[in-house]
Amino acid sequence: MSEPAPSSEGKLSRAAAQRLSQYLRFARSLAEADGTVSSVELAEAVGVSAAQVRRDLASLGHLGQRGVGYDAAGLVSALRKAIGVDRRWRVVLVGVGNLARALLKYRGFGEHGFDVVGLFDTAPATIGTVVEGHRVESITKLTAAVSELKAELGVLTVPAEAAQGVADAMVAAGLKGLMNFAPVRIRVPSGVSVVPVDLAIQLEQLAFAVHFHEIEETEQ
Amino acid sequence: MSEPAPSSEGKLSRAAAQRLSQYLRFARSLAEADGTVSSVELAEAVGVSAAQVRRDLASLGHLGQRGVGYDAAGLVSALRKAIGVDRRWRVVLVGVGNLARALLKYRGFGEHGFDVVGLFDTAPATIGTVVEGHRVESITKLTAAVSELKAELGVLTVPAEAAQGVADAMVAAGLKGLMNFAPVRIRVPSGVSVVPVDLAIQLEQLAFAVHFHEIEETEQ
Repeated sequence: MSEPAPSSEGKLSRAAAQRLSQYLRFARSLAEADGTVSSVELAEAVGVSAAQVRRDLASLGHLGQRGVGYDAAGLVSALRKAIGVDRRWRVVLVGVGNLARALLKYRGFGEHGFDVVGLFDTAPATIGTVVEGHRVESITKLTAAVSELKAELGVLTVPAEAAQGVADAMVAAGLKGLMNFAPVRIRVPSGVSVVPVDLAIQLEQLAFAVHFHEIEETEQ
Repeated sequence: MSEPAPSSEGKLSRAAAQRLSQYLRFARSLAEADGTVSSVELAEAVGVSAAQVRRDLASLGHLGQRGVGYDAAGLVSALRKAIGVDRRWRVVLVGVGNLARALLKYRGFGEHGFDVVGLFDTAPATIGTVVEGHRVESITKLTAAVSELKAELGVLTVPAEAAQGVADAMVAAGLKGLMNFAPVRIRVPSGVSVVPVDLAIQLEQLAFAVHFHEIEETEQ
């Protein structure tokens, strides 16, 4: 029972993986203070049913006891292992603009096991400056640096028109996973993962939700 | 056939709504330059099947002609209407830190129809400063300002521990949709929508994808 939570096909869906991250976030907030957390509390915190929580967590092993709940610290440990964050990940960031600076000040990355180990840019005015304790290097040094720094993940905070070229360079440098903030879909070879974070699309989705709420209300 | 793309239950799923946003992003990039876009091109750009594209777009009306494709400008117009961004949305931003500054410099919001009309914070040192052309106001003025500015959406870029209190104030002020960057789930009354953007969870999902790729590779 030490394998990461598999679905019936033996593979975790993206939605299931996201739920594990959300359970982890909540369990972590309780692990220091207190002993146990119930499936009902987890369900409430994450916004799913308690039955869903129990199904998701059942696949992690025998963590819960009926009427007692889950040991929060043990749950944190099992979830971190299932997600793959029971180790630290080394991350480089390419494109040192405002968003990159905001991300560098966001302590959540470090707390969740992600260490930014290098910053890269193409602009001569930016290269050589020091941002949050890191010297910004030229992107021409990326391949050597990824190898030397043992980085595995990369964050792209470059404009849309530069994104694919930069992503290609990041893949060629040996990075295995890219978090893409550029508002364009990037293509990568199989074996490389991409998580897109398109803030304009998120805001459109919010507009959509509000818009449809309105329609429902006016139609009633 | 002028209704927004409904599913078989007459309501668009969140995943379907996200696909519409992605089609829109791609169609918009073509609408100025050229006349048409095929379902195959849309499928390729978004990463779904062409059949899925045709199903999603069929519900928008008779946009495509066999062998010709979709008129890009007409598609943009139909998608904007279906998503609810065929109008502009007025947005206030609460919590003026680095992330907020990055968001304010992100021209994508304006281009997608979202106008930031007010900035609010609780810190005396921040209130009264001017950031990207907006004077930061005290959150105590939120209710009056939302009404005066006719704002409907709000962006929360506050720390986790402040998020629920600020969200309550934003809802009380009359905002109908919140984009939450704080790493905590916020609760809102029914009739108010929330889109969470948790960057640590996104990065965990990337680690998960890379981790599982690795497992698959070593197991083969």
